[in-house]
Amino acid sequence: MTASPRNLIDRVFFGFQNTATLKAALELDVFTAIGNGVLDADALAAKCEAGPRGIAALCDSLVVMGFLNKSSAGYALAEDAAVFLDRASPACIAGIHEFLAAPEFVELVFRDPAGAVRRGGSEGLANVAPDNPIWIRFARAMGPFMAPDAKMVAEHAGDPAPKKVLDIAASHGLFGIAFGRRFPECHVTGLDWGAVVAVARENAAAAGMQDRYSTIVGSAFDVPWGEGYDLVLVPNFLHHFDRAVCTGLLRRARAALAPGGRVAIVEWIPNEDRVSPPAPALFAMTMVLTTPNGTTYTAAELAAMLADAEFGAPTVIPLIPTPLTLVLARGV
Amino acid sequence: MTASPRNLIDRVFFGFQNTATLKAALELDVFTAIGNGVLDADALAAKCEAGPRGIAALCDSLVVMGFLNKSSAGYALAEDAAVFLDRASPACIAGIHEFLAAPEFVELVFRDPAGAVRRGGSEGLANVAPDNPIWIRFARAMGPFMAPDAKMVAEHAGDPAPKKVLDIAASHGLFGIAFGRRFPECHVTGLDWGAVVAVARENAAAAGMQDRYSTIVGSAFDVPWGEGYDLVLVPNFLHHFDRAVCTGLLRRARAALAPGGRVAIVEWIPNEDRVSPPAPALFAMTMVLTTPNGTTYTAAELAAMLADAEFGAPTVIPLIPTPLTLVLARGV
Repeated sequence: MTASPRNLIDRVFFGFQNTATLKAALELDVFTAIGNGVLDADALAAKCEAGPRGIAALCDSLVVMGFLNKSSAGYALAEDAAVFLDRASPACIAGIHEFLAAPEFVELVFRDPAGAVRRGGSEGLANVAPDNPIWIRFARAMGPFMAPDAKMVAEHAGDPAPKKVLDIAASHGLFGIAFGRRFPECHVTGLDWGAVVAVARENAAAAGMQDRYSTIVGSAFDVPWGEGYDLVLVPNFLHHFDRAVCTGLLRRARAALAPGGRVAIVEWIPNEDRVSPPAPALFAMTMVLTTPNGTTYTAAELAAMLADAEFGAPTVIPLIPTPLTLVLARGV
Repeated sequence: MTASPRNLIDRVFFGFQNTATLKAALELDVFTAIGNGVLDADALAAKCEAGPRGIAALCDSLVVMGFLNKSSAGYALAEDAAVFLDRASPACIAGIHEFLAAPEFVELVFRDPAGAVRRGGSEGLANVAPDNPIWIRFARAMGPFMAPDAKMVAEHAGDPAPKKVLDIAASHGLFGIAFGRRFPECHVTGLDWGAVVAVARENAAAAGMQDRYSTIVGSAFDVPWGEGYDLVLVPNFLHHFDRAVCTGLLRRARAALAPGGRVAIVEWIPNEDRVSPPAPALFAMTMVLTTPNGTTYTAAELAAMLADAEFGAPTVIPLIPTPLTLVLARGV
C-alpha cells in the first residue's frame, strides 16, 4: 500500500461528520421516505420537507457510506438501510443514534480524549442522576437494537427451560422479556432504576406478560436481588466496571441462583489479541472515553472471574451477526 | 451481503469515537513516541506519561483503524502513521486534527445536522471575527497538510514560468510559496485577513523568499487585487460559495491577469455521479454542515463558471494521492 493521507482524513474528519450525517438522515427519516421506491433529490426533499441541495449532499454521502444506492432514477435503499433503518421493517433500529450518538456522549467523548487515555477513564455520565430522563430515552432507543441478541440468548440459554429469571440492569428489559416470550411458564424480574424499569414494564406489557413480570427498583449494587432464580441475566453491564466489581457482581448472581442455576452474561468480547473482531476491539476505547473504570474482557478473563465467583467453566457463544457474545456458566 | 448492524454501529458510534481516538493519539504524540521502534503498552505509557490501561485501549483501537500494527513485542507504526503522523517524518501532518477536528467544527457539525440539510447549509463559523485567533491556528494546522498539493500545483502550472503570482485567500500561503520556491524570478502576493496573512509571511520568510513576497490584507471580496499577474491561485476557496459568487470571483481573477495569464483552482472535485471518489463526494456534506452556501463543483460545472468569466476550456489534473484536483484555465 502506498502511503496516502486518505485514511487519515477519513478517520479524523469524515469520522465524526459521518456520524452527524447519519443522525441527520434518521431525524429526517429519509430511509422510510425512500422505502421500497426510488426517489430523486427533488422528490425526496419534498417528502422530507427539506431543501433539495441539502438532501442531495446528504444522500450522496449516504451512498458513499453504503446505506443508499444511486442510479439515474434516484436513490434506493441498500440492504442494511432496508433492514435496519426503514421504519416499515420489523428489524428497524432507526432510533439507535439517540443513544449511540446522544449529544451527552458526543460531548463527553470530545471533552478531553487525551486526558481520558492518561487517566484510563473519564468522569462518565455519572453526574447524571438515576432519575434523569436521559436513561429513559436510552432504554427506549436501545430496545430495538438489542432485540435480536435477546432472542438468541433465550434460544441458547433455554435448556433446561428456566422458570424464574432475574434481569440485572434490565433497562428496556428485552433480555428478560425474551425468556418470557419463549417460555410461557417463566416468571421474569427486571432490576433497574425506577424511571428506567418503567420502560421494561411497558415492554413486558406489550409482550402480554405483565402478570409474569416483576421489578426490583434500585441500583444492582444496593438492593437485594432475591433468590432461587434458574437464570440471572447480566446483559451489557460488566463492561462498565473493573474486575473486582465484576467479580463481586458475579458473586451476588451466584448467591441468587437456585441449585443448578446459571448466569448469562452478554458482552462485547475481543479475541485474545484485543484487536479483533473490530467492534469489540474498539469498544475498550469506548469505555475509556465514557466511563471511569470500564473496559472489555476476553473470554479467558471472564472465565477467571466466573471461577472466582464459584461458577463452572463457561460456554461462549458469539451472537452472530451482532457484535455481542453470550457467556453461560452454571454455579458449582 | 447479509444485512448486519455492523456498518451502522461503525458509522453511528465509532465514527465520532475514532475521530476522538486519533485526536487523543496526536495530542499524546504516541506515533512519534513509537517512531521506528516497537513498544508495548507499559513502555509507551511511561514515554507518553499516561496510564497503561488507557494506552492499551488507545493503541488497540489504532490497530483496528490501520495506524498501528501489533505483535507479541508491542505496537509498531503502520505505513500511513510512519509517513504522516511521526513528527520525525518530513511529510508529517500530525497537526491536522487542530483544524479538521477543531472543537469549533465538531460543535458546529453536531449542532443541528438535520436543520443544516433542511436549509441546505449552516450558519458556519461566520460568527468568528476575521481577527479571531482560530484562523491563525487553522492556517498553521493546514499548512503541512497542503504542502504536497502546493508542490504539485507549482509543477503542473509552471509552464510558462510565472513571474507574478497572486494567491487568493492564501491562509498559510503555501500554494503561492511553492511557486516562489520553484521559480527564483517569481514574485508572489498573498491575499488574506491580516492575522492570517502573517502566517503566510512567516512561511515565506522560512522559504527564504521574504524579498519576493508581498501581502494584501483584507477580504478577497472587498480589497483591490492589483493586476498584471501571470497566475492567480484560488486554492480551497470556491467550495465555500454558491455559483454566482464563484463566477464573480473568477471574473475578478480574469481582470487581474496579464494577457495570456492563467487561473489555477484547487478543489475537492467529485465525478459527475457525485458519489465518487469518496472523499470529494463526502465533502459536499461537509459544506452543508459547516457553511451557509458552500458545496462542491464537478469539473463540468467549474468549466461553465470559467467560461462565464471569460476563461478558455480548463485542464483538469487530479493531485494524486491527495483528494484534491487542480483546474487550470487561460483567460480568453
